[in-house]
Amino acid sequence: MEKRLSETVEIEVRFSEVDSMKVVWHGNYMQYFEDGREAFGRKYGLDYLTIYGQGYFVPVVDIAFHYRKPMEYGRKALLTVTYRPCEAAKILFDYEIKDSETGEVLTTGSSVQVFMDRNYQLEVSSPAFYKEWKKRWL
Amino acid sequence: MEKRLSETVEIEVRFSEVDSMKVVWHGNYMQYFEDGREAFGRKYGLDYLTIYGQGYFVPVVDIAFHYRKPMEYGRKALLTVTYRPCEAAKILFDYEIKDSETGEVLTTGSSVQVFMDRNYQLEVSSPAFYKEWKKRWL
Amino acid sequence: MEKRLSETVEIEVRFSEVDSMKVVWHGNYMQYFEDGREAFGRKYGLDYLTIYGQGYFVPVVDIAFHYRKPMEYGRKALLTVTYRPCEAAKILFDYEIKDSETGEVLTTGSSVQVFMDRNYQLEVSSPAFYKEWKKRWL
Amino acid sequence: MEKRLSETVEIEVRFSEVDSMKVVWHGNYMQYFEDGREAFGRKYGLDYLTIYGQGYFVPVVDIAFHYRKPMEYGRKALLTVTYRPCEAAKILFDYEIKDSETGEVLTTGSSVQVFMDRNYQLEVSSPAFYKEWKKRWL
Repeated sequence: MEKRLSETVEIEVRFSEVDSMKVVWHGNYMQYFEDGREAFGRKYGLDYLTIYGQGYFVPVVDIAFHYRKPMEYGRKALLTVTYRPCEAAKILFDYEIKDSETGEVLTTGSSVQVFMDRNYQLEVSSPAFYKEWKKRWL
Repeated sequence: MEKRLSETVEIEVRFSEVDSMKVVWHGNYMQYFEDGREAFGRKYGLDYLTIYGQGYFVPVVDIAFHYRKPMEYGRKALLTVTYRPCEAAKILFDYEIKDSETGEVLTTGSSVQVFMDRNYQLEVSSPAFYKEWKKRWL
Repeated sequence: MEKRLSETVEIEVRFSEVDSMKVVWHGNYMQYFEDGREAFGRKYGLDYLTIYGQGYFVPVVDIAFHYRKPMEYGRKALLTVTYRPCEAAKILFDYEIKDSETGEVLTTGSSVQVFMDRNYQLEVSSPAFYKEWKKRWL
Repeated sequence: MEKRLSETVEIEVRFSEVDSMKVVWHGNYMQYFEDGREAFGRKYGLDYLTIYGQGYFVPVVDIAFHYRKPMEYGRKALLTVTYRPCEAAKILFDYEIKDSETGEVLTTGSSVQVFMDRNYQLEVSSPAFYKEWKKRWL
């Protein structure tokens, strides 16, 4: 089995992220996943600013969440973002949030990003820097 | 083809919802979809407060977004939320955001909610009020 | 007493805006106030897009909130935004949120905006269009 | 001059916090200030959970922001939250955000919190635990 590229960040639930059912409002996981993508990006040189510096945006075109167990205020959890290799001009990630102490899986998900140039034109082929990035890391 | 239950709400993009790429940050669609669910709920008597009054929560357990075209500040769009019937103790919705003028589809998605009682116990069978609701509307 | 320019918008508290104390998280009032400013702007031709079209940004430099009574999910309230005339190159607003039914004052506040040109340079004198706007409306 | 109690936290601006003017939307500072209050609370035993364990809520009743210089994506800044002693049954804080490298002051502010018991009744006198806390730390 090939080794996957991944990064793990800690999630500390804030008071304002918890709703009247005393658990994190499901919509807040969008921000957790983006924090995870950016942490992965900083680790592997694939963060928004680096990509922008190369002349591209990487908008999210698909994202999905599966909520198994909720998180309450003060909960500490770990989000692992794993890069899923593919041939297309896309960036695929899988996400897993686990309780820091028990390791119980709380939430999973996946996302797809594509490349757009500075004129918001979709890139149908991987930009040169991304091909280089894949050669370097995969 | 059976007639589907649906409700349509207008989305008016706010300044703060738009990011530095001048389009709505993808994470904000979680709120649009929830606004749509609540509008559907008010139309058909299946909103959070009514369900809570019956003794249940309806947490989202799955949600997915497919972003085709972005929305910028001031854009007016229509979100249609359609109920998808199923046999299980779940509430399924499909979402479609279209430009108010052109009708172009901008974003689609789907969600799944389950029933939990006030003690946060999952209901494996449809609560009585939900069976009545289905009889009434489907 | 001179007649003040003002606009009133309805606030309908969303589920996600309410915290674990079952009232609107105080931070969400920033968005309510901005919604109010933009509604005032659309009524009097002083909204962000119009101002931007004239070549300016109007960043908020001061804002203050006084919370008297909280709002819970489903509460309907009215926010009135009133323009406070001044000689300087500033836009001053006073805010008041009242319960739609009882008229009880729930929250008050104020804000100050200044003018910056497209190069983010502060305008120390009122832009021409703002002087014209004042002549027209005050 | 008496030594003031304070805590400093790092702010790392996220992509989603930045608006179409490429600076942090002013409304997001509500969350920064709350993060600062909670960090102060964890340092001195005056965080939301500890206070709640004593039987109280500490809702914000006043908060004000003065924005001098904006922050853009990727900016690193330091927020210092300083406790301002007072005789009343209130918790007063002053805030200062400075650039991590230059020390330039970017934003300042202040807030006032009061004590409410679990029945949402305002405490006009300092709760016993707060008097003890003041004796311990001031």
